[in-house]
Amino acid sequence: MVVIMKGADVVKSMKEKMLKDVESLKSEGINPCLAIMRVGARPDDLAYERGAVKRCEGLGIKCAVKEYPESIGQDDLIEEIQKTGEDGGIHGILLFRPLPKHIDENAVKHFINPEKDVDCLNPVNVAKVFEGDASGFAPCTPAAVMEMLEHYGIDVTGKRVVVIGRSLVVGKPLSMLLLKKNATVTICHTRTRNIEETCKSAEILIAAAGKAKMVTDRYLSPGQVVIDVGINTDRDGGLCGDVDYNAAEKVAGYITPVPGGVGTVTAAVLAKHVIKAAGRLKPPVK
Amino acid sequence: MVVIMKGADVVKSMKEKMLKDVESLKSEGINPCLAIMRVGARPDDLAYERGAVKRCEGLGIKCAVKEYPESIGQDDLIEEIQKTGEDGGIHGILLFRPLPKHIDENAVKHFINPEKDVDCLNPVNVAKVFEGDASGFAPCTPAAVMEMLEHYGIDVTGKRVVVIGRSLVVGKPLSMLLLKKNATVTICHTRTRNIEETCKSAEILIAAAGKAKMVTDRYLSPGQVVIDVGINTDRDGGLCGDVDYNAAEKVAGYITPVPGGVGTVTAAVLAKHVIKAAGRLKPPVK
Repeated sequence: MVVIMKGADVVKSMKEKMLKDVESLKSEGINPCLAIMRVGARPDDLAYERGAVKRCEGLGIKCAVKEYPESIGQDDLIEEIQKTGEDGGIHGILLFRPLPKHIDENAVKHFINPEKDVDCLNPVNVAKVFEGDASGFAPCTPAAVMEMLEHYGIDVTGKRVVVIGRSLVVGKPLSMLLLKKNATVTICHTRTRNIEETCKSAEILIAAAGKAKMVTDRYLSPGQVVIDVGINTDRDGGLCGDVDYNAAEKVAGYITPVPGGVGTVTAAVLAKHVIKAAGRLKPPVK
Repeated sequence: MVVIMKGADVVKSMKEKMLKDVESLKSEGINPCLAIMRVGARPDDLAYERGAVKRCEGLGIKCAVKEYPESIGQDDLIEEIQKTGEDGGIHGILLFRPLPKHIDENAVKHFINPEKDVDCLNPVNVAKVFEGDASGFAPCTPAAVMEMLEHYGIDVTGKRVVVIGRSLVVGKPLSMLLLKKNATVTICHTRTRNIEETCKSAEILIAAAGKAKMVTDRYLSPGQVVIDVGINTDRDGGLCGDVDYNAAEKVAGYITPVPGGVGTVTAAVLAKHVIKAAGRLKPPVK
């Protein structure tokens, strides 16, 4: 019988701990707060924002949404980011990307206070993920995959883990998080030859390719753990992952659904990072 | 017949181009200069320094060796690093590690001017390697492996490349450089199960484990490209790599010797990075 790895179950158990952590912070006079910095109002950003605000507020974390016009200049945005970074009442900063074309993300990201950089934009935190230094913040989606594996008691130590996709948002940082946990990691991508065979040989297969239902039964072998990070729109306009779920559930030992899988956990990880930041940024006892 | 990938041959062809580049810089009034910053006088550092100075000076690159007493305080070292970073006559900075125990490398590395950080210590450059952004500097040893592959016309695109070792100095950055060139990369390490089988399945096998002759014939399959990054001392006090060379040369298609392989190329890469830095730091035309 395949085990469906439900995002909601992972979130539920994360929530218990987080509620206690927030309570403890508040008893010390710290009110954790996430600043959501958004340039323009793209529907994708708004959808993610709604989820993040709901998740954070449900945990007692305040959200300060800062919307800027699409016409904002790069220097003005940097100034806003710096101001937010220095604001003692704000513990986490989430800056939506992509930014408008006239703003160079590479120029901007350095100005996010690394101590508040809860979605890992500042190179200081990017380098920490690469180095396996857990004192920074990993991007929320790969961290959500790790939460799911842990929740379902799947130890990756020594296991053959294949990651499809080498993006900076998921594939690469996830590979580093898995490596840190002693997995043997293979990174596949569009140029990989015999990708089906490589995927078949995995004990844990993680699809983060951004290609609807590309992982068919030819990629799978019995009993595999199959984690689907993709969120795509299928031909009928519905949501689907990178994995052909109907094919996979017949073969896999564990599988994450889309929706209701990794994506559900991402906002909880964001909240967890805000709590971590708030705990560290707390003022010294007088 | 196995092809022996000789470091000297790679260096020879790199040198031709570098001599031209240095000449061109000098004709513009730029005298490329590497600052070697060394705390104490460990024999390993001195040996590497001699090689680097010889290589650089043979190319017309000046070396400014700055030796500091082992007792130097962290703040004083940081001040020296900052001063060197601002010195218009210096284009590259090589800081030997490990630093003495009373100095926190993590605190120091941020102060190396990223534009002069020719061996990739500053997180800005570490993040760039991770991101596949070639505008920074990769650490010299993994970059030397890439030079060797290129020199011998070995295209890694789509190939199964297995890297043994996940260090920050070699294994991880090398994996990222290979991924950038579209290899399918598997990272193995001490916790990997069935490592022999995984290594056997590689088209290109790169040993960077730091364990003398660990790669025996049981790790190898006919025709493989075997790159040996290890530099170890064997029981007789001689140098040897991570690969059992005698076993490998009977099986492999290509193989790098130790000594005379990757290590030979490293100092040439260092020189190449200094030239790159000098070319970028040149003053604007008046």
